[in-house]
Amino acid sequence: MYNLLKGKRGIIFGALDENSIAWKTAERVHEEGGVFVLTNAPAAMRLGNISDLALKTGAQVIPADATSVTDLEKLIEQAMDILGGKIDFVLHSIGMSVNVRKGNHYTNQNYDFTQKGWNVSAVSFHKVLQVLYKKDAMNEWGSIVALSYMAAQRVFPDYNDMADNKAFLESVARSFGYFFGRDKKVRVNTISQSPTATKAGQGVKGFNGFIAFADKMAPLGNASALDCANYTVSMFSDLTKMVTLQNLLHDGGFSNVGVSQEVMEMFE
Amino acid sequence: MYNLLKGKRGIIFGALDENSIAWKTAERVHEEGGVFVLTNAPAAMRLGNISDLALKTGAQVIPADATSVTDLEKLIEQAMDILGGKIDFVLHSIGMSVNVRKGNHYTNQNYDFTQKGWNVSAVSFHKVLQVLYKKDAMNEWGSIVALSYMAAQRVFPDYNDMADNKAFLESVARSFGYFFGRDKKVRVNTISQSPTATKAGQGVKGFNGFIAFADKMAPLGNASALDCANYTVSMFSDLTKMVTLQNLLHDGGFSNVGVSQEVMEMFE
Amino acid sequence: MYNLLKGKRGIIFGALDENSIAWKTAERVHEEGGVFVLTNAPAAMRLGNISDLALKTGAQVIPADATSVTDLEKLIEQAMDILGGKIDFVLHSIGMSVNVRKGNHYTNQNYDFTQKGWNVSAVSFHKVLQVLYKKDAMNEWGSIVALSYMAAQRVFPDYNDMADNKAFLESVARSFGYFFGRDKKVRVNTISQSPTATKAGQGVKGFNGFIAFADKMAPLGNASALDCANYTVSMFSDLTKMVTLQNLLHDGGFSNVGVSQEVMEMFE
Amino acid sequence: MYNLLKGKRGIIFGALDENSIAWKTAERVHEEGGVFVLTNAPAAMRLGNISDLALKTGAQVIPADATSVTDLEKLIEQAMDILGGKIDFVLHSIGMSVNVRKGNHYTNQNYDFTQKGWNVSAVSFHKVLQVLYKKDAMNEWGSIVALSYMAAQRVFPDYNDMADNKAFLESVARSFGYFFGRDKKVRVNTISQSPTATKAGQGVKGFNGFIAFADKMAPLGNASALDCANYTVSMFSDLTKMVTLQNLLHDGGFSNVGVSQEVMEMFE
Repeated sequence: MYNLLKGKRGIIFGALDENSIAWKTAERVHEEGGVFVLTNAPAAMRLGNISDLALKTGAQVIPADATSVTDLEKLIEQAMDILGGKIDFVLHSIGMSVNVRKGNHYTNQNYDFTQKGWNVSAVSFHKVLQVLYKKDAMNEWGSIVALSYMAAQRVFPDYNDMADNKAFLESVARSFGYFFGRDKKVRVNTISQSPTATKAGQGVKGFNGFIAFADKMAPLGNASALDCANYTVSMFSDLTKMVTLQNLLHDGGFSNVGVSQEVMEMFE
Repeated sequence: MYNLLKGKRGIIFGALDENSIAWKTAERVHEEGGVFVLTNAPAAMRLGNISDLALKTGAQVIPADATSVTDLEKLIEQAMDILGGKIDFVLHSIGMSVNVRKGNHYTNQNYDFTQKGWNVSAVSFHKVLQVLYKKDAMNEWGSIVALSYMAAQRVFPDYNDMADNKAFLESVARSFGYFFGRDKKVRVNTISQSPTATKAGQGVKGFNGFIAFADKMAPLGNASALDCANYTVSMFSDLTKMVTLQNLLHDGGFSNVGVSQEVMEMFE
Repeated sequence: MYNLLKGKRGIIFGALDENSIAWKTAERVHEEGGVFVLTNAPAAMRLGNISDLALKTGAQVIPADATSVTDLEKLIEQAMDILGGKIDFVLHSIGMSVNVRKGNHYTNQNYDFTQKGWNVSAVSFHKVLQVLYKKDAMNEWGSIVALSYMAAQRVFPDYNDMADNKAFLESVARSFGYFFGRDKKVRVNTISQSPTATKAGQGVKGFNGFIAFADKMAPLGNASALDCANYTVSMFSDLTKMVTLQNLLHDGGFSNVGVSQEVMEMFE
Repeated sequence: MYNLLKGKRGIIFGALDENSIAWKTAERVHEEGGVFVLTNAPAAMRLGNISDLALKTGAQVIPADATSVTDLEKLIEQAMDILGGKIDFVLHSIGMSVNVRKGNHYTNQNYDFTQKGWNVSAVSFHKVLQVLYKKDAMNEWGSIVALSYMAAQRVFPDYNDMADNKAFLESVARSFGYFFGRDKKVRVNTISQSPTATKAGQGVKGFNGFIAFADKMAPLGNASALDCANYTVSMFSDLTKMVTLQNLLHDGGFSNVGVSQEVMEMFE
C-alpha cells in the first residue's frame, strides 16, 4: 500500500498455507511492490498449497531442502536469474522438531531426532547465510530476517527442543550478522513472534493454554501472523537500515510483563 | 516518500537545531504525510532555530516546559485543537544533566543537580504520558517513542548520571506502556540510538573517543540522526502496531558485539 | 557455620523486624563470623525492634537517614571507629514509595511523592556509595549489595513507581560499580529477590496474588528471606570476588520461565 | 578452607591440565571437603595429566565420552558406587570446535564439523542432564554448573561456531533446569567466565588480543581460573540454593561495560 519495497527482490522460505507467517509476509511484500521467489522443502510443499500463493503474488516456486547446501546454491542462483539481480530481502521461517512430533518429552530426547530438528530449524539458517555470503548474492543494505520465539530466552515447557534450536538460530543471526554487516552492509535479525496459530504452532502440545496465557499477559494481546508480516515488511524496508544483530520482540508487550492484572487476579 | 503517516497527528518534543534527532524526525514525518506540533522548553528554543523547522514542515511551535504538568496540559489541548483531533504519535527527545554541564564527576554528584537532571530527562516522560493518558488524548494504535541510550544497560564512564536517568526513562516506558497498551491500545517504546553528534551529545566529555569507538565496533557503523528519524517513522507507522514495552537498539549492531576484529587487533 | 566472613566488617541498612531480609542477613553474617553496625532511619527504627537484633548479633545501632549525606558521613566514620577498620561489606535494603502508601495509581502519580520515593529508594544508594568512595572507607575486594526486584525489567502492575526506582538503583550499581571496581577493587551488585513477605512487600496491593503466581511459576518456588540472606553471605565472601556490575536474579528460576506447566493448565 | 562442601559428592568433567578451570575447581572442591570422581574423554586424558589431580584430591578417574549416553550411564552408576550415594554437584566443562581446529572461518563452515562441535560442546550437557534425571541420580538441592562464555550473547569474531554452541548450551541449562528444579529440586546454571588462558582458550585465534581487550574493559580485570573455581564452589554450596536457570556472568564486570576509560582514550 505504500510501495515500501518497490524495486526490491527477495526469497521467502517456509510459506505452507494461508495461516503461515511466511504466507502473510509474501502477500504483504507483494502489496508493497517487492518481487520474490517462494521456496519450501519438497515434502512441505505437498502438505500445503503454495502454488495458490505463487499465482496470487506472481512469484515462482523453487523447491529446496534448506538443509542441503547444494539445493540452496541452486535456489539462490535461480532466484537471481528469475528476479534479474541480487537479493534485497530474505525471510527464513523454518522450524521442526522430530522429538515434538514423536511425542518425546524434553527430558527423554532421542538424540538423532534432536540433531535432525537442530539441522532443519537452526543450521539451515547458517547454510542460507553462508551460501548468500559466498555467492555475494545480497545487495548492500539488504535485510535478512529469521523467525524465532521467546522460548530461546525463557522456558515454555512444551516447546521442547525447539527452544534450544531457536537459541542457536538467534546466535547464528548475531554471529553471521557481524560478518554480513561488516563485509556486505547487510543486516541480519530475528523476529521473536507471539505464539501464532500456524500449522507448526498448533503441533505443540498444550498450544491452546499457551496462546491464551500469552494473550492475557500481553497488554496489546498476541500479535497475529498478519501483524508479523507487517513488521517484517518494515524490517525489509529502507527505514530500518541500521538495525542489525537484534532479536526483535514482536509480541504485544508480553516479553516485558512480569504478570498482568488479569492473570494475577486468578491467584488472589 | 511512502505516505506512511498520512492522516496521522503528533507532537514532537526536543528539536533544537538541524543536528537534532527530533529535527530530522520532524522532517521525515512531514515527508511521510504526518502533521504535528513542535515543542521545546522556552530556554532551549532561544538556543536553536526551531522556527525554521516549523516553517519548513508547516508546523506550529508551542513552547512548553516538559517538567511542568500545567504546561503539558496546555500543550496537549492546543495540539489537539490545532491538528483537529486526537494524537497518533509522540516523540520525546529530551535530556540534560546538570552534573555533566557543571563538570561534576559521577562519583562527586551534587544531588540537587542529580534531581534536576532526573526531572528533566526522565520524569518529564512520565508526565507527558500521564497527561496524555488522563486526557484520553491518544488515538487507538497510536505510538509513543522516547529516545534513550545504551548507557542504561552498560557503563560509558563519561555519560555520568544520564545513564541512571535513561534507565529510569526506559522503565517508565515499560511501566506506563503496560497501562497505555491495555487501556488505550497505544504502544510505548524507547529507541536506544548510537552516539550521535547532536548538540546534547557533543556536550559529553570524551565524546569523540566514544563515537569513534562505537563506529569501529558496530558492523554497520554508527546510526546517524537521519537513520534514527527513519526508524522512528517506522515505529510511528501502522507496520509496527504490536511492538510495545521494548527498548529498541538502533546502533548498527554495536550492542551485540563483544569486540570487533578491528578493535581487537589494537590489543594484539 | 563456615566462618566465611571471619574478620570482615560491614554495615547493614534496613533491618526492621524479623521478616526483613536485612534482619536475616544480619543473623547469617553474624553466624559466619562477620561484624557490623546496623542502621536504619530513625522513623523506621520506631516501627521495628532493631535493638533485639543488635543484642543478638553483638552489633551497635547507628540511626541514619540514608537520604542525608551528613548522616551517612557520620555513620561511616562511626562504623569504622566501632569496627576498628575499613569496611568489607555493605547491604542496602531500603525502599519506599509514597505513591504506593497513599494509594496513587501508577497513571496518577503525585510527582512530589515520586521524587521522595526515588530519593529514598534509589538515590540513597548513590549517596552511600559516594560517601564510601570519597572517604576511601572500603577495603580492597570489599562487596556492596543492594536489594532489587524484577519489576526493574518487567511490569508488575501494582509495584508502581518502585519499578522505576529499582531500575535507577540497578543502574547506579553498574555506574558506580565501574569506578569502585577500577579505583578501589570493590564490587557492587544488586540481588533481584523473589517477592518476599516482609513489611515492605506486604504493603504492595495485590501482594498475595503476586507472590502466589511467582511461586507457581518458579521451578523451585519463591526464595525466602533466609535464602536471600544466605545468597548475600556468598556475595560478601571471598568466593565471589570477580562478580561485579551484575543484577543477580535470586528467585527460584522465576525470571527465566515464560510459563510453568501448572500456570498454563489454568488457561487450557 | 570453610568446609562448605563437606559431605557432598560430585562429578567433575573436563579437567585436562593445571590451567583448566575444571582442574582448579577440583582442587578447591577438595579443599572445601567435597568428594568427587573426575572424568574426561579418553582422547583428552592422553593429552593431560589428570592422574596427578586424582592423586592430589583422592579422586578416582572414570574415562567417558560425554557424547555417548552409554558411557554417561556407566559413569554415573560408578560415581554413585564409588562415592557412596547420590550426586550433589556436577561441573560440565567441555567444549571443542572442529571448525576452529581446522581453521575454517565462521562464514566458511564445514557442517560435519559444525555438528561434531555442537554434539561435544552442547548436546553433551543435555545428555549428562538426561542421564542424571532418568536415573534419579541427584540429591535434592543438588547443583549442576556448565561453563559458558559471553559469545553466546555478543559477537567475538574468532570464537566462531563455539558462540552458537554456547547459546545452545545455555538454553539447555534453562530448559532442563526447569524440569530438574520442579521435579527434583536441583538447580542448573551456567557460569559465563572471562576469557581464560586454558588449553582450550589458547586454541582460539587472536586469543591474546581478545584477553587483553577484556582485561582493559573490565573494572576488576579478567577473572582467573582460580576465581572461577571459587565461584563454582559457591554455586555448589547450600548458600545459593534458590539460584537456578541463570547464566551467571563471572568476568570482573566486563559484560556491563560499554567502554572503559582506558579503551576510549585509545580512540580520542
